[in-house]
Amino acid sequence: MEVYLDNSATTRVSPRAAEAMMKIIGSVYGNPSSLHAKGLEAERSLRAARRTVADSIGSDESEIIFTSGGTEANNLAVLGAARARRKRGNKIVTTAFEHSSVFEACKELESEGFEVVYIEPDENGSISSDAFSQAIDGNTILVSAMYVNNELGTILPVERIQRIIKKKNAPALFHCDAVQGYGKLPIKVKKLGCDLLTVSAHKIHGPKGCGALFIKKGVHIKPLVYGGEQERKIRPGTEALPLICGFAAACEELEDIPGRLGAITQLRDYTLSKLEAIGGVVRNSPQDALPYIINVSAVGVRSETMLHFLENKEIYVSSGSACSKGKKSHVLSAMKLEDKRIDSALRISFSCDSTKEEADALAAAVKEGMETLVKAYG
Amino acid sequence: MEVYLDNSATTRVSPRAAEAMMKIIGSVYGNPSSLHAKGLEAERSLRAARRTVADSIGSDESEIIFTSGGTEANNLAVLGAARARRKRGNKIVTTAFEHSSVFEACKELESEGFEVVYIEPDENGSISSDAFSQAIDGNTILVSAMYVNNELGTILPVERIQRIIKKKNAPALFHCDAVQGYGKLPIKVKKLGCDLLTVSAHKIHGPKGCGALFIKKGVHIKPLVYGGEQERKIRPGTEALPLICGFAAACEELEDIPGRLGAITQLRDYTLSKLEAIGGVVRNSPQDALPYIINVSAVGVRSETMLHFLENKEIYVSSGSACSKGKKSHVLSAMKLEDKRIDSALRISFSCDSTKEEADALAAAVKEGMETLVKAYG
Repeated sequence: MEVYLDNSATTRVSPRAAEAMMKIIGSVYGNPSSLHAKGLEAERSLRAARRTVADSIGSDESEIIFTSGGTEANNLAVLGAARARRKRGNKIVTTAFEHSSVFEACKELESEGFEVVYIEPDENGSISSDAFSQAIDGNTILVSAMYVNNELGTILPVERIQRIIKKKNAPALFHCDAVQGYGKLPIKVKKLGCDLLTVSAHKIHGPKGCGALFIKKGVHIKPLVYGGEQERKIRPGTEALPLICGFAAACEELEDIPGRLGAITQLRDYTLSKLEAIGGVVRNSPQDALPYIINVSAVGVRSETMLHFLENKEIYVSSGSACSKGKKSHVLSAMKLEDKRIDSALRISFSCDSTKEEADALAAAVKEGMETLVKAYG
Repeated sequence: MEVYLDNSATTRVSPRAAEAMMKIIGSVYGNPSSLHAKGLEAERSLRAARRTVADSIGSDESEIIFTSGGTEANNLAVLGAARARRKRGNKIVTTAFEHSSVFEACKELESEGFEVVYIEPDENGSISSDAFSQAIDGNTILVSAMYVNNELGTILPVERIQRIIKKKNAPALFHCDAVQGYGKLPIKVKKLGCDLLTVSAHKIHGPKGCGALFIKKGVHIKPLVYGGEQERKIRPGTEALPLICGFAAACEELEDIPGRLGAITQLRDYTLSKLEAIGGVVRNSPQDALPYIINVSAVGVRSETMLHFLENKEIYVSSGSACSKGKKSHVLSAMKLEDKRIDSALRISFSCDSTKEEADALAAAVKEGMETLVKAYG
């Protein structure tokens, strides 16, 4: 039995999304910008997909810009907003455990002269809204905060951020990286109060290479690339229609999000109780984390060693973000965990298809791993 | 019979490319950056694809950066090179009829304080190497010139540019936008002498949403987006593996480029002789243009009117670049053609599958169009 529990890194493409892509590849090959019937046919598919993605976050279709994925959307939001607002202030507020695409974009902005405040999580991996209140001031032009942390599952108090911005009279746009929350928590951009919001297809059983940035009507950001008329010139280039339609098909499958959340909460509790019963295994995720993500440390066994032990049993988990490719986790470092906990961290991430049997297989394997590997390498 | 002669806008995905994509979508769903076997399997597919694309232009695989398409690759090259070389000079040399993704990127660089020289084509739509010689000087940090113009088919004297740069002792990188020449002319980066070269998948029967930038070993450019470790941090973000493998499959089909060029030259000559025999039809492409592209004006009938007349017969051509979506062609304007020729321009673009029967159908339809439409609207 193959047990894939690395769904925060990427997911299997669903049959429905794959079918939607094949339909486009096989028959709708026109360029959506072409003026003839082949182009119009493609443009119609593009519009329908845009409407579906817009509906999935409660936005207007004119507010959706398709990108090559979450990384590009996060960069477009963070770099684009800061560079467009340079004259209104100089301060950016974010957290110390954002995804690298926000974190590194902020580092770039520092080199361009912006001041960036990185709010650190507490030792439980949480950040309070008070921390945002303290950081945001009248000079703040951008707040970028993820909805759900990709390594811990921490749910951030993002719904309070717009109110804080208003209260502080800050000229700030609010960008929310919702890649890990999308499809797992109900997301409505109006309720969130965000000006910019990032989602990605391949985390919800859509294809890799496709994401979207919500840009609230009237909000102006500076593009990263220049060229044709596509995506209202905010993100030119021939649209990746097969991917976009695969993305839309995956969106259509996001049904009964609260029901799924309930089921995964039960699965998480079950898995965690089994894991925590193993000597040496400690939880890193906060108690109230998104249940799709469990971060634990199997203290005494290096992450990579356990990863390979598990993969020999066809069980796939990760040591942290795939994007950091084995580098020391900046998320766990920001929590100021002991090195031995950071070096032995494991991220288990469920999809809506994950089962109790998979959890059993994982727990049994981790138990066996701890018994044999601690002895061998400990 | 459907006659698709808009292959410079986009091409049909080949069955082999489609199959390669489906294989990845169906079975290789891991994240290439994941450390477990699912990730390694994906990473192996990625490496193989990179090798194939590298081979297609005679480069090393370490010199290939995958992007979301030609527009992104052109921007990464032009913006990335200029911004990285700011301290070495201030001048950029390009042409007045580049693709909008180079042209608009240059406009952005002007707003950042760079001086950009746009070399204009002559009245035949050609640019001589002398024109580059005159423009390039010791302050030039970047020369960006397309291999083949996308509206006219003009082949530029790009092989001479590196020699001119050397002769002028310019601290310039040479970027070649090879999107329209790729797969149609034999391209070897060493022979071309370029430091940066753009190619795109969907112009060679690969998928939309995927391109590549060749970056010569040792050449440093500034990224557009920041994040994870992918693509040597020059272009982070989870790799669009299905598209990349579809791109590689399309590359593998680029066989006998000179043989195809000979066949298309015959088809071009045949088509052109039939079109020029129609009263009012004049050629805009230079005599020695790439034969895959024919630009003519059907003087007296507006492009859009003729386009719709033809599409009613299931014949698909364009009025110019798809990316400009019906705006007045900056390419024909740069040639200083009369308005009545610009407004009646048609671009016919072949693929290696185009046939004499399709040319006959096109010529007959244009003839009929001229006879009925000039009377009606002329």
